[in-house]
Order: sequence, then structure tokens, then C-alpha cells
Amino acid sequence: MSDRKYSIGVDFGTESGRAVLVDVSNGHEVATAVYQYANGVIDENLPDTDIPLDPDFALQDPNDYLDVFKKTIPAVLHESGVSPEDVIGIGSDFTACTVLPTKADGTPLCFLPEFRNNPHAWVKLWKHHAAQPEANQLNDAAKSLGYEFLDRYGGKISSEWFFPKLWQTLDEAPEIYAAADRYIEAADWVIWMLSGVETRNNCTAGYKAIWSKKDGYPPKEFFKALNPQLENVVDEKLSRQIAYLGDRAGTLTAEAAAWTGLKEGTPVAVANVDAHVSVPAATVVESGRMVIIMGTSNCHMVLGDSENIVPGMCGYVEDGIIPGFFGYEAGQSCVGDHFAWFVENCVPQSYHQDAASKGLDIHAYLEEKAASLLPGESGLLALDWWNGNRSVLVDVDLTGLLIGQTLATKPEEMYRALIEATAYGTRIIIETFEQHGVPVNEIVATGGLPDRNLLLMQIYADVTGREIRVSAAKQTPALGSAMFGAVAAGKAAGGYDTIYAASQAMAHLRDELYIPNPEHQAVYDQLYAEYVRLHDYFGRGENDVMKRLKSLKVSVLKSS
Amino acid sequence: MSDRKYSIGVDFGTESGRAVLVDVSNGHEVATAVYQYANGVIDENLPDTDIPLDPDFALQDPNDYLDVFKKTIPAVLHESGVSPEDVIGIGSDFTACTVLPTKADGTPLCFLPEFRNNPHAWVKLWKHHAAQPEANQLNDAAKSLGYEFLDRYGGKISSEWFFPKLWQTLDEAPEIYAAADRYIEAADWVIWMLSGVETRNNCTAGYKAIWSKKDGYPPKEFFKALNPQLENVVDEKLSRQIAYLGDRAGTLTAEAAAWTGLKEGTPVAVANVDAHVSVPAATVVESGRMVIIMGTSNCHMVLGDSENIVPGMCGYVEDGIIPGFFGYEAGQSCVGDHFAWFVENCVPQSYHQDAASKGLDIHAYLEEKAASLLPGESGLLALDWWNGNRSVLVDVDLTGLLIGQTLATKPEEMYRALIEATAYGTRIIIETFEQHGVPVNEIVATGGLPDRNLLLMQIYADVTGREIRVSAAKQTPALGSAMFGAVAAGKAAGGYDTIYAASQAMAHLRDELYIPNPEHQAVYDQLYAEYVRLHDYFGRGENDVMKRLKSLKVSVLKSS
Repeated sequence: MSDRKYSIGVDFGTESGRAVLVDVSNGHEVATAVYQYANGVIDENLPDTDIPLDPDFALQDPNDYLDVFKKTIPAVLHESGVSPEDVIGIGSDFTACTVLPTKADGTPLCFLPEFRNNPHAWVKLWKHHAAQPEANQLNDAAKSLGYEFLDRYGGKISSEWFFPKLWQTLDEAPEIYAAADRYIEAADWVIWMLSGVETRNNCTAGYKAIWSKKDGYPPKEFFKALNPQLENVVDEKLSRQIAYLGDRAGTLTAEAAAWTGLKEGTPVAVANVDAHVSVPAATVVESGRMVIIMGTSNCHMVLGDSENIVPGMCGYVEDGIIPGFFGYEAGQSCVGDHFAWFVENCVPQSYHQDAASKGLDIHAYLEEKAASLLPGESGLLALDWWNGNRSVLVDVDLTGLLIGQTLATKPEEMYRALIEATAYGTRIIIETFEQHGVPVNEIVATGGLPDRNLLLMQIYADVTGREIRVSAAKQTPALGSAMFGAVAAGKAAGGYDTIYAASQAMAHLRDELYIPNPEHQAVYDQLYAEYVRLHDYFGRGENDVMKRLKSLKVSVLKSS
Repeated sequence: MSDRKYSIGVDFGTESGRAVLVDVSNGHEVATAVYQYANGVIDENLPDTDIPLDPDFALQDPNDYLDVFKKTIPAVLHESGVSPEDVIGIGSDFTACTVLPTKADGTPLCFLPEFRNNPHAWVKLWKHHAAQPEANQLNDAAKSLGYEFLDRYGGKISSEWFFPKLWQTLDEAPEIYAAADRYIEAADWVIWMLSGVETRNNCTAGYKAIWSKKDGYPPKEFFKALNPQLENVVDEKLSRQIAYLGDRAGTLTAEAAAWTGLKEGTPVAVANVDAHVSVPAATVVESGRMVIIMGTSNCHMVLGDSENIVPGMCGYVEDGIIPGFFGYEAGQSCVGDHFAWFVENCVPQSYHQDAASKGLDIHAYLEEKAASLLPGESGLLALDWWNGNRSVLVDVDLTGLLIGQTLATKPEEMYRALIEATAYGTRIIIETFEQHGVPVNEIVATGGLPDRNLLLMQIYADVTGREIRVSAAKQTPALGSAMFGAVAAGKAAGGYDTIYAASQAMAHLRDELYIPNPEHQAVYDQLYAEYVRLHDYFGRGENDVMKRLKSLKVSVLKSS
């Protein structure tokens, strides 16, 4: 035992899980270990079988999650040389909504031989998109019956969320639905496996399962209207008892201590979501400062002092990110994916050759060329809807647009136009928040893009007119989970009593600061006005050409 | 001397001139020779000097034109073994509007040492774009003074045409203007050099110099309003005597006979324009059949029985293509150029590699992939305005648009969308003609694209709902000129008395026929409706975003 205390954060991603062992006094990341899921994303056949999956299915194997604990925690202990005595707490965050059916003791149905060959017995990963019919019916019912909860979710419940996925199980595999004593977020399930205690965190309950602190779940009548068998779904398969972020779920069982090498009785934090746990890890525990997780997509989170209906956001949850605040979330479904698509499909051979001769990766080469352009110089403007629009239009059927091409248009100009389009998309989110009572004065960025694309960061500052700072953490979600682990331990045990205190001590920003350039802002204000006009024209029903093209495409392919 | 008679057509292009020796009985192209202009397109320095040219200047050296006669005609005689006795006529066509100042005897001012260093003494090529200020002033004056002649030209006189170019000379080089006894189309000048007779053909006079059979040139008051020195420009520098297509300009002089190896006294046809001379060479000498010259741009020509104002066309001229008809012309400024831009800027490395491994040129590879798609399958739609819109919007400030992209969008889908966009552009031209009394029942294609891109031809048939045939001539304009050479000779000399008779005997179509596919038509009708809606929204003033982006670009670059 030493004076220094440590906590461990475990971040469950789409392809792998990662543990980070952190110095509780200052948030220093002492050791990291990653475990690639053996069965990864299951979207073709069930493991070790020829049983094919329908399109849009995306499953996972819960055993992979247990292996993350078994492999990575011993590894970070070993690497750091830290004694288990000095690990005061453990926290964990997960993708969401990622759900599974279990028996009453938490045993996943897919672990049972009689259910192993049924896809619905497995984990439905966040990007499982096969429950769209159920989502559509649920939304139609909520609208026609006049339920106001839709307002908390930008007017629409996503097919990715809890009840559509659960309902799909009832529709397509009633025997699985009947055999499931519990239906639970994987986030909560892994905490159950560590602590032996079934909890349901308020973050996923609020953002994914239509629960709110004020109103709880939708009433039985609503579920009955969907399907009589769902009338008592909450009491039969979920729980009305909700655990809050910052609380302790329980302590490590002897079995989990044996898996991990940690001490039995080590405090375990209530489960969290990868995006939301990043907020305090990015130093944000107050209103007015937006965290943007920038990667393949953008996730925008901001804390509000009061409850506000902001049209087109993904959701808001009281205490859903940080206790005492309304946690607001919005998103852009195509950011890094946009640039990856462009590089794969639109960059000519000569650019690859030039990049290679300069020893640059193609993204870096394009960035260098795009950075030499002035705002407005390309004459191009794009709508960043290659993967639909999550906020503020909440419409997956929207598609991309690029306007202003001439015979002199160069690839780096199109590339820059795509970057700018995502920045305009972020600005429209910020302005929508501010118009509805949720101020955004500053931005803190985290995720993969801020490291790799400095041009993008400056463009975001210029377009939004906000200063942007960058989280210093190498693994922001895992750090956030470790912070919640330290809060689960409490101050008396060498941790912290609140996530505010943990954030102040353990979360840091880099020195770099992106300051809006007033000349660029003036040009971008003009371009943004044009963006908004096209955004509204194509996105708000004036000309639904994108949807008509999409449905024509579907009908052409169907009849071929 | 033999029973077989021949005529020679000489086609003057942008980079070279070409002679074709043709069998008058059947149009068979017996021999061809090409001469690349020694001074090509002069757009940097005047030849053999350091004298720089302003941007947008594009000049030529008239000596290159004479060299075309001197090199190519002897070559085709030599290659064919045909006796000059058996060459009964010669015709020629030229780019237009391509103009030069000369002395009274036809000597170009740039041949005179005292003017050789002045750019305005040289030929201004059709794509010389430096007379835009004069074009703008001319259009403003015509509009404000209420001159109706603008209606004959889609509402606008182009900076490429005769009077803007002439006026620029007066503005910027008054000494050249003063020294010029004549200002003349290069088309007419080369005929002058062959025959010793100055003529002015009704085709360039009508399409480029605001002349009409009914009203002649604009009145003196109009020219005086532009600049008092221009009051008598027609009488001082041009001529009110107009020669008609199908007439004989004169006969070969002794000097020109010595250059060419032809017989002195060989009949020489009145000058023609490359596009217009292609119409009878593509078998079209009646109304209702549109000829489209498909290359870097598209030029659409159709004969009408009556005079109609068709909004947004390039112009119409009575007897301007074929005697007895109103010749209507429209155009699309970016067709082959579009595909070339795409291939240069947007096709990824892997496609080039795959094409190479299949032994295909990249256009052919893209065509193969694009051809495997169904209409509507890509979900994409484009506006074909990368180089502005010539017809029917007559607006050089419009730019491109591509809509409907997703993360699954492939290069061949974008490529096909560009092809389809040019087909929609052609359909809008056809429909505009038909709505204003000029029927288009069938299409005859000529130019470079029909040979190379069969997919494009089928798409044009499907989109326009018209059957398309292809001219059989290898060199359609040169064949047309040879046909007019045979008409200049007349039936008595072994030629023809009319261009109708010449066309019937000498012009042919290929066997291949592109027939609209009714299923494809049904899909394209829907896509075309979307195209028209976007065309009108962005092109007719509802949202001038393209122009605002363009002017922002200009102002950004200016202030940098």
C-alpha cells in the first residue's frame, strides 16, 4: 500500500474494450490495456454456426465483455506495478443502446444451449438497425395518442433504442421474450457481473428507454397500445428502481475479484455511457460549455440549468450527465465518415502519388492543400447529410449535396467544403440550443479528430464563433469512468465525494486554444446563411427531392 | 480526267485545319490531311515576342490558315491520286465568331510590321473572352433602348461575338481600328484568300453579327449610342451585301491554285461555320430532326418552318443553316468537359488500377461500371452547370450541383449522374423548342462522344424519349463543306444544284439506332421532373446562391 491511490476505468467500445489505470490525485493515465472482442460485431452468422443473420442485424457476445475485465485489468495492474490495495474504485462506460435478455441471475440467454442458436438471445448492439418497423409503430402510436415524451427526444424514438429492440424480440422470437426474466443495457449488465447487483443507470434509462426523473417510464396504457403483452413490460423485464450517475452500484464480488486481480469489496460505480462519461473527463461540470466528441460522427453534449424543449436534439435527461443539471445531447451522423468516404471515392491517383512523394498520409496531404485556401475561395457549399441528419432535423432519409462546382474545382476544395459543412451543422445545433434557453459559450473537443485535423478545429472555431479547447486525456471515456470509480470510493477512501471534485482534480485541457479569426468569421457568416437556407429548403419539406430520389432508388431496385 | 468527280471540304478548328477529299457521287471520304497551326492558340505572348497578353485573350495567326490550304490540299490530292481536273469545287467551314482586321485588299493588319506588336491586329479567336465589358454595355444599351433583336439571341449578345470584339479593338487600340479597312470573320477571310472576292456569309452575319434577312444590321443610331465612332461601322468596316449559304463566292485565283495544286477557276463556296455545316452532312435538310454535335460541349441545331421566338436559345437565323428554313441553335457549355473534369479530379486510385488490369481506358472502365446501374438506382441527381448554362438560361454564372450522396455512393454513380444531367439539359432544350413552335421528333448525333460513349447515347434516348441516329461521316463538318463545294460547282459541272440534293446523295447515317426503353423512360420522367424543379429553383432567381458563392469567391480573392 502506498500514499498514491488509483482507480480503473473500463471503456467498452464497438470492437474492443479498454482499461485505463489512473492516478486519482491528478488523473494521470498510468497504464492502458485493450482487448479486441473475439466475436467482434456479429452481423453475418451466429458464432460457430451457419445460421445467417437478417440484414441490419448487429449482435455481440456478452462473453467478450467479461473477457475485457479478465484480460485488461490484470494487464494494467501488471504494467503499472500498482497494488490492488491502492485501487480504490472501478467505473465503466459502454456503447448504448446495447441490450441483452438474461435470466433472473443475470445469465445471458445466449449462454444457454437451448437459446444459443436464436439471434434474439444475443446482445443487440447499438447499431443493430433491424427494429425500424417497431420504432415506426411506436412513434406513430405515441403521436396519435398524444404522448408528450416524444418532445424530450427531438420528436422521434430511434430504432436503435431500448423499446424498439425489446419489442422486435417479442415480435420475432416470443420464446426468447418469454424466457427473458430481465432485459437490460449491457452497460448495467457488466456492472451486475462485477458487483452481483442489478442496477439500472439513469443515463441509459433516460436517453434510451424513455424514462425521466419526473415522469418515470411511459404508462402501462401506452405499452398496452403497442402490444397487449407489453402492458407490464417495465415491471416484468426492467425495473422502476433507477441508480444515479455518481452513486456506487456495489462492490466487487469474490468471483470478479478473481477475474481481475482486484480486491473483493472494491467499490464499483453505477454504469455510464461512453459519450456522457466524457463530459466531466473533458473538465465540463457546469452549464454553458459544450463538449463535442468528434470522430466518425459528432456527439454534442451540454449541461443546462433548466428544463427546455430544444427541437431536434437526441434527448435530454435530468441528472443524465452530471447530477444537478439537465444533460442535453445532440448529434451529427456523418463527420469523420464523411472524410473517409471522400478519400476512398473521390481523390485522384495523382494526389496519392504526390502525398506519397512528400511522405504524407493522404488525409494530411489533403489537409495541407485545403489549409492553403481562404474561406469562401472555393465557391463551394455542402450539406453534411451523407448519413442523414441526426440534429436538428432528425431525418435519416436526407442525403448529401454539393453545390458550386466549376471545371476548375479541385479535390482539396471539395474536401474543405465537407469539413465546413460539418461545422455549419454544429453551428445550427448550437444556435438551436441557444434559441431555446441552453447557452453555449465555449466548446471542448475530444475524440479522434481533434488530434488529427487542426484545420478542422480552426474551421469549427471560425464557423461557430466559439473558442475551442481540447481534452488532454488520451482516453477520455476511460478517464471519465475512472473518475466515477473514484467517486464511488468516496473521499474517505482517498477518492472524491462528487464528480465535480473529481473533475477538477483529474480532468485537464491541453494548452492549445482555437480562437475564431474575425475575418474568417465574417466570410463564414455569409456562407452559413446560405447553408441555413439550403438546409431548410431541402430539410424542412419545401423540396423533398432527397426523399423522392431515395424512394425511387428503393422501388427501382425492388422491381429489378 | 475521269467520270468520278470530287470536291474538297476544309474544316478550320481551334488547334488545326483539316482537308477532306470527297467523292461527289456518294460522299465517300477518299483522303484526309490535317495541319496543326504553327502558332496554335495565342494566349500568353505574341508570337516571337515577349509581349504578354491580358487574361482572357485568345488570338490566332492568319498565316496558319493559309498554311492549312498550302499543306492539306496538296496532301489529299497526292494521297488520293485524284486529278485536279476532277475536283469540281471547294468549300470551307470555320470556328465562329473568329474575326480579324484587314486592309482593303484583305492583308491582315498583323502581317504589317507597324502593327505586328499590337494584339488587336491579330485574329481574335472564338474563345477570346476579353470583350466582356463591351458585351455588357451593348446588352444594357439594347435593353434600355428597347431593341428587339435581343429576342433572336436568347436575350443576350455574347462577349464572344462580332461587335463586342470589334468594339474592344476601338476601345483598347483605336489606331488598329482606324487602320482597319475591313473587319471580317476568318471564315469569310479564307474564302476571300481563295477566290479574291470579299464575301460575308449569312450564317456568321446572322448568328454572330446581329444581322437578319428581314431587318439587316441594327440601325446606325444603335451603334452611335454605343460610341459615336461606331455610328457608321457597318458601312465603314463591314458590308451590307450578304452572301447566302449554298451560293458560290467565286472561283480559285491563280495564286490560290498555285498554293493548293487545284485548278484556277475551281468554284469556291460561300463560307460556313463548323457546327452549321454539319447539319446537312448529318442528313438533316428538313424540319423536325435535331442535330446535336456532342463533344466538349453540345451544340443543338434544328430547322424550323416558321419564325419563332424560343427563350434561351443561342440564336436563330433565316436561311442560316439550310436555305428556306429558320435555323435554330442552342447549346450546353459543359458535356465532354464534364466527364474529363470528373476523371481528372474525382476518380480514385483503385479505379485506375482496376481499369489498367482490365486493359481499359478509365472512361471505358467507368462507362462499364455505370452501365451496370439502373436508372434511378444511384439516388443521385446533378445540374450540369459546371461551366454555366448556355441554353435555356443563358447564364455563365451558374455552377454545378450534385445531390443525393450517401456513404455508399460510388464514383460510377456520380459519373452516371453527370451523364444523365447533360441528357436532362438536352431535354429541357428540346421541350423549350417544342413549346415555342419548333418540333423535334428525332435526333441525329455527331461529334466525338457518340463514338466513344454508347451508354451516353442510350441515356440520351431514354431521357429525351427520342430515337437517336448517328452521322456516318468520319469528319462531319469537312464533309459538309465538301457538299457545299459540290453545290458551288452545280449539277452541270458534276455537282448538285441544291444542298438538299447534295445531302441526299452524299450524307449518310450509321445503321445503329438508339431506341428509348419505355421502363427507363418512366424512371427518367420522374428524375427529369426533379431536375426541372432544381433547375428552376437555382436557375431562375428563386435562390441565387450559386451567384452569391461566386461573387463571394471573387471578393475573397480580391481582398487577399
